[in-house]
Amino acid sequence: MIQITIIGSGNVAQHLIKAFSASKIVEIKQVFSRKKENLLHLIDSEKIVTDFAALEPADLHIISVSDNAITEVSEQLPFNNQLVVHTSGTSSIELLNPKNRRGVFYPLQTFSKNKALDYSVVPFCLEAENTADFKLLETVAKSVSTAVYSISSEQRKALHVAAVFASNFTNHLYQIGQEVCEENQVPFAVLRPLIQETADKINTLDPIDAQTGPAIRHDSNTINAHLAFLQDENKKNIYKILTQSIQHNGKKL
Amino acid sequence: MIQITIIGSGNVAQHLIKAFSASKIVEIKQVFSRKKENLLHLIDSEKIVTDFAALEPADLHIISVSDNAITEVSEQLPFNNQLVVHTSGTSSIELLNPKNRRGVFYPLQTFSKNKALDYSVVPFCLEAENTADFKLLETVAKSVSTAVYSISSEQRKALHVAAVFASNFTNHLYQIGQEVCEENQVPFAVLRPLIQETADKINTLDPIDAQTGPAIRHDSNTINAHLAFLQDENKKNIYKILTQSIQHNGKKL
Repeated sequence: MIQITIIGSGNVAQHLIKAFSASKIVEIKQVFSRKKENLLHLIDSEKIVTDFAALEPADLHIISVSDNAITEVSEQLPFNNQLVVHTSGTSSIELLNPKNRRGVFYPLQTFSKNKALDYSVVPFCLEAENTADFKLLETVAKSVSTAVYSISSEQRKALHVAAVFASNFTNHLYQIGQEVCEENQVPFAVLRPLIQETADKINTLDPIDAQTGPAIRHDSNTINAHLAFLQDENKKNIYKILTQSIQHNGKKL
Repeated sequence: MIQITIIGSGNVAQHLIKAFSASKIVEIKQVFSRKKENLLHLIDSEKIVTDFAALEPADLHIISVSDNAITEVSEQLPFNNQLVVHTSGTSSIELLNPKNRRGVFYPLQTFSKNKALDYSVVPFCLEAENTADFKLLETVAKSVSTAVYSISSEQRKALHVAAVFASNFTNHLYQIGQEVCEENQVPFAVLRPLIQETADKINTLDPIDAQTGPAIRHDSNTINAHLAFLQDENKKNIYKILTQSIQHNGKKL
């Protein structure tokens, strides 16, 4: 069994604990959490340590903390020349203290505490400083997922920006859709199948070929009617800017 | 069997023909298309008429043409006091010529020519001028879908605006995500599971509770790094505006 240690108790750390608990080739040796009670629902109490000095070397140490704590946490580790990775989409591998061998183990998914996840389709984006370490990360990632990629720090930066557009901003547009519905006594449920189909479509079509709606049709009557309908300045502004962007960058049907 | 006639040969008309061809209680009596060859792959040649004068009264006549042609087409129908509906999300019931009984039969879905669709989950938004006509529309819609709603012209206007945000604009954000990936040699495939999960999440969570990412965390380091990374002014502008909107209207985690 590959022995791993997870440092952190947030959303991503908790999902990793769940994912590895089901793995047949990876064993969680220790988990670090400032407060033991954060993780008691997920793992045996004796595996949880609350003091950095209690951490022991393992085959792999995964630091899953907020980006601005990565450097400090990696300094606090009480060992050298071990494999230590972080799970951040935005942070360079360089943030990790060089007293250990460094890497990145970035699961590209939107993790919510209250939603179960099928880890087998979560893309894991891996980076390491040498081939042997990369192979180990690959083995660990493949024990939970079928989608494992080698992604450099520079590529990962792009991927994270792309993910903000395609996931975070998209979810905010769902929220606006819900607000417009509910302000007008339309149940949001009416919109849900459309949202689902919009996401499903790009499994078989490129987004540029899947674009529909008044913007890409240059249907200015509908666009003006929608702008007149929207009272909220923020929604109106978002509507205008995204309509212009579709018209300048989309493919005319 | 309920006899219906479909007027139009575009995307929505073609999907309706497909959907009703499988119905056990609805029969397509006639279809109007200016060019017969547009529909020969979907329906028997003798049911296609190319001249308005050849249209006969049926139980229901569905006009599925571009919004700005609805009024003219409804005038051209060679009969009176029949049930005539349009399929538009944006057009008022009033656009239909009052010589016939009027209604709306609006399937809220994003219809692409090259993507098959499960009609049973397509929401149908119905409106009619009297109860008997509404009941007939309901029977017809329920013969293909389990999601049938009574939606007034005013509600439908809101719903269409909401759909533009939640579907058309969302798809454009997928396109931007793909561009950012491919400009940086990252396969778009890495992003697809995230897009899927983002849509899946709102089946169990409200969007406001599902929001993740640097904007809602008020993580200004990451936001500034992303803005510095984006060279394209349009993408930068969209990033700024949606980040501000999330920060002003989201729920702080």
